[in-house]
Amino acid sequence: MSARDTIAAFEIIDGKLAVGGLPLDRLAARIGSTPFFAYDRRLLTQRVALLREKLPSKINLSYAIKANPMPAVVQHLSSLVDSFDVASTGELRIALDTPMRSDQISFAGPAKTIAELTQAVAAGVTIELESITEARRVLAIGEKLGVRPRVAIRVNPDFAIKGSGMRMGGGPQQFGVDSEVVPQFLHELSKVDLNVLGFHVFGGSQNLRADIICEAQRKTVELATKLAAAMPSPVRYLNLGGGFGIPYFDKDESLNLAMVGTNLQELFDGPIRNHFPEARLVIELGRYIVGECGIYVTRVVDCKQSRGKQFVMVDGGLHHQLAASGNFGQVIRRNYPLAIGNRMTEAVTETANVVGCLCTPLDLLGEGVGVPKVEIDDLVVLFQAGAYGMSASPSAFLSHPPAIEVLV
Amino acid sequence: MSARDTIAAFEIIDGKLAVGGLPLDRLAARIGSTPFFAYDRRLLTQRVALLREKLPSKINLSYAIKANPMPAVVQHLSSLVDSFDVASTGELRIALDTPMRSDQISFAGPAKTIAELTQAVAAGVTIELESITEARRVLAIGEKLGVRPRVAIRVNPDFAIKGSGMRMGGGPQQFGVDSEVVPQFLHELSKVDLNVLGFHVFGGSQNLRADIICEAQRKTVELATKLAAAMPSPVRYLNLGGGFGIPYFDKDESLNLAMVGTNLQELFDGPIRNHFPEARLVIELGRYIVGECGIYVTRVVDCKQSRGKQFVMVDGGLHHQLAASGNFGQVIRRNYPLAIGNRMTEAVTETANVVGCLCTPLDLLGEGVGVPKVEIDDLVVLFQAGAYGMSASPSAFLSHPPAIEVLV
Repeated sequence: MSARDTIAAFEIIDGKLAVGGLPLDRLAARIGSTPFFAYDRRLLTQRVALLREKLPSKINLSYAIKANPMPAVVQHLSSLVDSFDVASTGELRIALDTPMRSDQISFAGPAKTIAELTQAVAAGVTIELESITEARRVLAIGEKLGVRPRVAIRVNPDFAIKGSGMRMGGGPQQFGVDSEVVPQFLHELSKVDLNVLGFHVFGGSQNLRADIICEAQRKTVELATKLAAAMPSPVRYLNLGGGFGIPYFDKDESLNLAMVGTNLQELFDGPIRNHFPEARLVIELGRYIVGECGIYVTRVVDCKQSRGKQFVMVDGGLHHQLAASGNFGQVIRRNYPLAIGNRMTEAVTETANVVGCLCTPLDLLGEGVGVPKVEIDDLVVLFQAGAYGMSASPSAFLSHPPAIEVLV
Repeated sequence: MSARDTIAAFEIIDGKLAVGGLPLDRLAARIGSTPFFAYDRRLLTQRVALLREKLPSKINLSYAIKANPMPAVVQHLSSLVDSFDVASTGELRIALDTPMRSDQISFAGPAKTIAELTQAVAAGVTIELESITEARRVLAIGEKLGVRPRVAIRVNPDFAIKGSGMRMGGGPQQFGVDSEVVPQFLHELSKVDLNVLGFHVFGGSQNLRADIICEAQRKTVELATKLAAAMPSPVRYLNLGGGFGIPYFDKDESLNLAMVGTNLQELFDGPIRNHFPEARLVIELGRYIVGECGIYVTRVVDCKQSRGKQFVMVDGGLHHQLAASGNFGQVIRRNYPLAIGNRMTEAVTETANVVGCLCTPLDLLGEGVGVPKVEIDDLVVLFQAGAYGMSASPSAFLSHPPAIEVLV
């Protein structure tokens, strides 16, 4: 399993890539314009089913809305997952518009303002406290609103997770409360009227190594066991984070989900049953659920030869899908999987640079890509566009129109 | 002159940074919320005056709207510069809403669609042709609308410009027509009903080396002189590009504008007078005009110690000002100039990481920055935010509210 398999997950009808049973040219006609992001409802459902199959049945599966906040996607997932995590009040609104119960929604993120915390307390969601300042604010807000706030402590662990695309735990961090400070923090919280549910430990994201994720989960349960001794009541919430990566590049190997599931089952059968009998055990995933279920589709506007190189020029670009251009946090630019969506069964005969419509050399969507003979009006598809695509791109850059998003 | 001098250009009133005569706390109160971008009208006017002083009086000064498309900024500049360049029909609308004459507006950019070219031909602006496909489209549109299109050829030169932040000319490029193909291209254009005005040669942006810019301008005039021989009529438009850089980092030295001006005067007195007596000579600048005239202002939400490091946590972040986080095209992250706007005259006593409110380690606005004692509700200012700030940032990332923009 690698990035190439993502392409294989999509149907091909009459040589054309299809989303939700619609060949791409017909879907483009239905939408009326390019570029667009299309998310496949069937693939989303299958993805959650895969997680249910491989992970222990007692796991509470949470969707981190930050990965893809499109309301239709979040609505669809609301009946498939057990809970949501939000990172802003914008995401909170989207979550509350679904049938998801508010006590199944968590709100994490550094630097939450008083206004944001007020909305969260009023909504009755679980606030993951990142500092003593936040605890004080939440308490004051709860008193003012006459609501007993539901809180958990986001813990900055005393270990780091290797191999993550982004490290968010271990060492000094803006995220969470340092683990060694948590007992004193809990002691302070025990004196006030807050409903302290438990802990959230999250060390990093986009990890493809199952062995490292398993080790992190074991260490997280160990750390939580130690910290639980200082809890004023039994732990009712333990969020082990997620960090499951997806393959973006040819050499990436998909995560061994079965290994992660087996490890979690062992933790359930041992320390979790012993130490956290009353806890809701949460695995929180964003990218892993939606990332491979979406594509970004652009139309070829021009094909050009320049000094021996072929350029395929499309009507989209990094303003819609920044990560694919290699300019968002990546050190080395590599190609995301790419195909000519209306020529899926034609042989590769040429090599081209696929570039966007922006007046900057950064707007490179595919470098030296093997393609069939490309013509103007062809549809260029970028895969792995379901997570951190449109919402993580500078859509106003050069004042082109935004992309359209559809769930099919 | 370096990045530090940008800070010095802003007024300080009662120890507070001021924009347009308003101390920052009062400006924040006037706006009603943070974060915001504030652009200084006086500094914009001064900047254009500086260019007028240092560059030959015959230069036609064009503002590249892509650098900052805020309508109020573009309106203000419409009375100060001679022309506008737009990179999309979104920018075209903003330009046409000003008193600027449409024949003083140019439209450049790869992969222009038929719909976009139709708008541009109808508007009567100068279309900078990037390929033979575009020429054919513009011709057909002109015939359909009964308008004789105004065009220039964007030339991909046969030389590269060293030291540019981004290289956009020389070698194979998606931009422009390869210089060696231009004579044949002009020959084709001479047979059809297009108003061919001249050339645009643009080799790269964000260059701080005056000697390299001077050399590029000399080479550009030489190249244009050669190409002019194939023109069906005298050259009436010669856009030498811009590429003037601004200092972002401590070690950056400001561009020696006087040297550029002297070189341009020599070109005017020599080859330009001889070969382009009827041409409007354009220098096109975006970042250089607006970049140092704007600041991004955020408010401190929390201050936190974590394992020996101090974190100043603000209500903004990379979703508003991506470049300052080092994640947009930069290989090495370096700090943009930063200050505590309400403590401008207090001594630096501490070192802090200034981080935004996003749940990602990428959201780092200042690393190991020297600051006075910072408190919650202080205003953190990032300088060099006038160009490629809000419009070049992923404003929907994590669904936080957008920043407000004001021209003061």
